[in-house]
Amino acid sequence: MTQEEKTMKSERIYEGKVINLRVDTVELPERKYSKREIVEHSGAVGIIAITENQEMIFVKQYRKSVEAVLLEIPAGRIEQDETPITTALRELEEETGYIANKMTKIIEYYTSPGFSNEVLHIFFAEGLVEGVAHPDEDEYIEVTYLSIDEAMKRIKQGEIKDSKTIMAVLLYKTMINTEV
Amino acid sequence: MTQEEKTMKSERIYEGKVINLRVDTVELPERKYSKREIVEHSGAVGIIAITENQEMIFVKQYRKSVEAVLLEIPAGRIEQDETPITTALRELEEETGYIANKMTKIIEYYTSPGFSNEVLHIFFAEGLVEGVAHPDEDEYIEVTYLSIDEAMKRIKQGEIKDSKTIMAVLLYKTMINTEV
Repeated sequence: MTQEEKTMKSERIYEGKVINLRVDTVELPERKYSKREIVEHSGAVGIIAITENQEMIFVKQYRKSVEAVLLEIPAGRIEQDETPITTALRELEEETGYIANKMTKIIEYYTSPGFSNEVLHIFFAEGLVEGVAHPDEDEYIEVTYLSIDEAMKRIKQGEIKDSKTIMAVLLYKTMINTEV
Repeated sequence: MTQEEKTMKSERIYEGKVINLRVDTVELPERKYSKREIVEHSGAVGIIAITENQEMIFVKQYRKSVEAVLLEIPAGRIEQDETPITTALRELEEETGYIANKMTKIIEYYTSPGFSNEVLHIFFAEGLVEGVAHPDEDEYIEVTYLSIDEAMKRIKQGEIKDSKTIMAVLLYKTMINTEV
């Protein structure tokens, strides 16, 4: 029933800074054909970082795609020559100033496999040392702290609207519950 | 610190079946400028559907974007003239054959706000009545059932790799734990 779709043609539409777009023509069973629009992305990381006071670190950032300021976990795109863990260490420091002495991968998943190959890696940062944030030139970021209960409340109230952030809070909540 | 980015120019790159692509030039503080690549998407739904045997309904589907068969919850794109709930009722029936007598929105979130405006709505289906699946012409889908514990295990083992599906399992697990 589920089977590979052979690429008959691949058209490159756009090569950008963050994404590329291509449209593949694929062969389906019974010699039928269909188009698949595919957004290529180098992958990204999100970081669960908990302070000594048991608060999770969040960043507020304007997102042009949705024309809104979103409350998110520290995160960023995997750049050329980076591994996910080096991206996680770099982004945490750039966006929040915190340096992590331990960074552990929790999970990785496809954010939107219906049209994109983006993989999101979620890390858990430990041994945090406070420092000074230094975001990218075109990033304007505000650091915020929330208890896990407050974060859960904001998810339920629809105030946290970012996928990886909801995922991170639910995963951390599950981690705590499993430990107890 | 976090502030709106005014659009100075908007270039339409591609208009497709599932997505459109545009590139906005935005103004940042201090008269700096940057490009924002934005994938426009009409939104999608995912459905948490639990059978009488307390098993969650999954579908296996080949995803060209990642060149793999993924285990996912029933889901689909919101089409023109649809509301999220009508999409949820339609997709559940098309992909699995089940008709739901009650469909409740659990959460909605942005799947990848770094480059897309896609909103994912997760619904909880109740009062399921079995029927016959009738997927779209270009969809090849296999229905599978898993207990919630088995689904959690497969997430930990990296066998469930789709964002909305991991989210749905974690949300349902949280719902159950809260009820008890």
